[in-house]
Amino acid sequence: MPMGDRLLPPHEALEIILRHVRPLPVERVPLEEAGDRVLAEPLIADQDLPPFPAATMDGFAVIAGDVSPWREIIGEQFAGSQTSVEVTPGTAVRITTGAPLPPGADAVVPVENTELRDDHVVIHQEQVEVGENVRPVGADLRRDQVLVEAGTPIGPAEIGLLASLGKVEVPVFRRPRMSVLSTGDELVDPAQEPGPGQIRDSNRFSLVLAARRAGADVVWSGRGPDDPAALRRLLEERIAASDIVLTSGGVSVGDKDFVKEILDDLGTVHFRRLFMKPGKPLNFATVGDTLVFGLPGNPVSALVGFEVFVNAALRVMAGRRDVQPRPVPVVLTHDVQSGDRLEFQRGLVWADESGVLHARNTGPQASARLLSLVGANAFLLIPPREAPYRAGERVMAVIRGPIGPAPETPAE
Amino acid sequence: MPMGDRLLPPHEALEIILRHVRPLPVERVPLEEAGDRVLAEPLIADQDLPPFPAATMDGFAVIAGDVSPWREIIGEQFAGSQTSVEVTPGTAVRITTGAPLPPGADAVVPVENTELRDDHVVIHQEQVEVGENVRPVGADLRRDQVLVEAGTPIGPAEIGLLASLGKVEVPVFRRPRMSVLSTGDELVDPAQEPGPGQIRDSNRFSLVLAARRAGADVVWSGRGPDDPAALRRLLEERIAASDIVLTSGGVSVGDKDFVKEILDDLGTVHFRRLFMKPGKPLNFATVGDTLVFGLPGNPVSALVGFEVFVNAALRVMAGRRDVQPRPVPVVLTHDVQSGDRLEFQRGLVWADESGVLHARNTGPQASARLLSLVGANAFLLIPPREAPYRAGERVMAVIRGPIGPAPETPAE
Repeated sequence: MPMGDRLLPPHEALEIILRHVRPLPVERVPLEEAGDRVLAEPLIADQDLPPFPAATMDGFAVIAGDVSPWREIIGEQFAGSQTSVEVTPGTAVRITTGAPLPPGADAVVPVENTELRDDHVVIHQEQVEVGENVRPVGADLRRDQVLVEAGTPIGPAEIGLLASLGKVEVPVFRRPRMSVLSTGDELVDPAQEPGPGQIRDSNRFSLVLAARRAGADVVWSGRGPDDPAALRRLLEERIAASDIVLTSGGVSVGDKDFVKEILDDLGTVHFRRLFMKPGKPLNFATVGDTLVFGLPGNPVSALVGFEVFVNAALRVMAGRRDVQPRPVPVVLTHDVQSGDRLEFQRGLVWADESGVLHARNTGPQASARLLSLVGANAFLLIPPREAPYRAGERVMAVIRGPIGPAPETPAE
Repeated sequence: MPMGDRLLPPHEALEIILRHVRPLPVERVPLEEAGDRVLAEPLIADQDLPPFPAATMDGFAVIAGDVSPWREIIGEQFAGSQTSVEVTPGTAVRITTGAPLPPGADAVVPVENTELRDDHVVIHQEQVEVGENVRPVGADLRRDQVLVEAGTPIGPAEIGLLASLGKVEVPVFRRPRMSVLSTGDELVDPAQEPGPGQIRDSNRFSLVLAARRAGADVVWSGRGPDDPAALRRLLEERIAASDIVLTSGGVSVGDKDFVKEILDDLGTVHFRRLFMKPGKPLNFATVGDTLVFGLPGNPVSALVGFEVFVNAALRVMAGRRDVQPRPVPVVLTHDVQSGDRLEFQRGLVWADESGVLHARNTGPQASARLLSLVGANAFLLIPPREAPYRAGERVMAVIRGPIGPAPETPAE
């Protein structure tokens, strides 16, 4: 695929990636391990819940239309069993929350509205409606109802629904196996003291954590050698063992950037350079069924590339329905100078007193300044334009975390 | 502490909880395990980064003011080493991205703007500025700068900063140890077929997952016996082994609710009943240093109680600075009838084409209907009021996840 020197717009890059990625196979896991996995089949109710009409209060099960001044207490109905005592006019059955309504009864009078006298109870409630304080059969969910769509991550509510229906083996998509490889002769391990011209490797740690948060199973991470033969052997091994391989560094046009040559040789490189900032040099290749992302070496470029492209690929692999976050408009609170490519500025978005989203960036946006990601909850999308964007103008933003009210701290 | 029958407003309940909870002790963990833990000391730069002026492009290191028509190439400067060759007028050093600027040079001309001829290079760039394509010392971070405040969760950017500075042992707060206990004679394990009057236990699974997502270390979970003596023994054992114990069920006024009696006996019960819906019956007790939350048995009530109260306690224990999410105004898109207590309706919040937050609830809001939490990204706070809330009115909402544009699916 010839590409020349054209810088590919990010949305086109994403389309190319999505054409080369498929959901991973389905596996069944025990309920206890299903949390934060992605449901592979729709969850459909195979029964009504509750399966019996249940009291929602502690009190007395009665017949709503019964006008007896007092009722004989003919039994007790606790949660977890089913009495056969039948409520008839002039009688009542003591009942606890969650217990099934005994035969004959059609309402529950809460204990606060009753008074005990020997073996009978006086109801201090003017009117009792049929169904009062009773959760009818199927009130929570109805047989054949689709409760959770396939492709939904299993959270606390979803796992509760699975448990309620007795789904103790849960169909989920296999988690993507990922290897993370940082390259660059200037890198040393964080425990080492850098020599002249050296810096510590940080991308490996950032990318491994980002990948774990995105649901990947990071099976290997390490630093790659800059020797082409050794790097090639390592890449071949990691590609064979992974659904997705990330490299960082080694993707510009310099003399010592070998990753792209190796990828060209092993598989198909689909694109190399993007019309975005940060993250212009970004390789995407496929080798068999394995995706390889050659992320830039600059820490911010690597993480933004991860969030925009790798995350989408991981979500498709993991079977998610929501592959891409959709941007929303936000009001800039300061002027922003655009660059010569679509910028993904790291920003803070909040809601003002009227519920309108506002945004500021996180200060200097240099591609190596990791600090620009600290405290950011959004990417502000800044297309190239001659005039600067002005305070009060709207731009689009991809929201990546919860929104609160205006920050108390001033901008940098 | 006498409480009578007063229903405690949720904000007062939260104040009581926060008075009884302290951050857990600090421990040091290897960098590899620091992800998603909470930083216990501020991260302060102990050096400038980059530590040397570095090329941001592949090209030639030159003297900006040099007007020589061509330059002799006197050496190569790759990343990861430091050449001693000095650039003088009429000379240049080949340089790769990330490599230190050689002595004498003060700018980098990108390779695209140069032409090689034998052993010299012609610069096709009219003017070269001092510092062009050079990242100066301290550009990314400055010595003594506070980079990350204590109490911040360690994400991809934060772990990258720790790695860059060689912090291979990271001070973090110990994770809260939690036990989760569901009670209720009507409960059976999900693998069992419920008998008459029985339902499957779901709260345990929901609460364990919610707790894990909130950073707790769930050391035990199970179903509790309804026999008071056995329940008491189990509670004593779990309280001794945990920083925080959750029970669900057994907190209403019914005959068989033993949890509250045991807690009264073992420690101090600080409140029992809240002015909120769902979640009115909610016990909070302390036994020594251990917090005990007696959550309601209704699945939604238990999870909302967790999100509003337990989550705040966990965040204090884990040392977080952001203990409580702060609500923002949202525009209702349909009428909402309020109840007799402050309602935490489960809702979906989105931004419209002007960046204004809108919201709808997730359908019927019964306390047992877990489905009301599926697809929700917010709690809509609905105070009691005689007239219904109308479409177009603003209410406050606690946002719990990312915000996107208007949903494509119609409301239920």
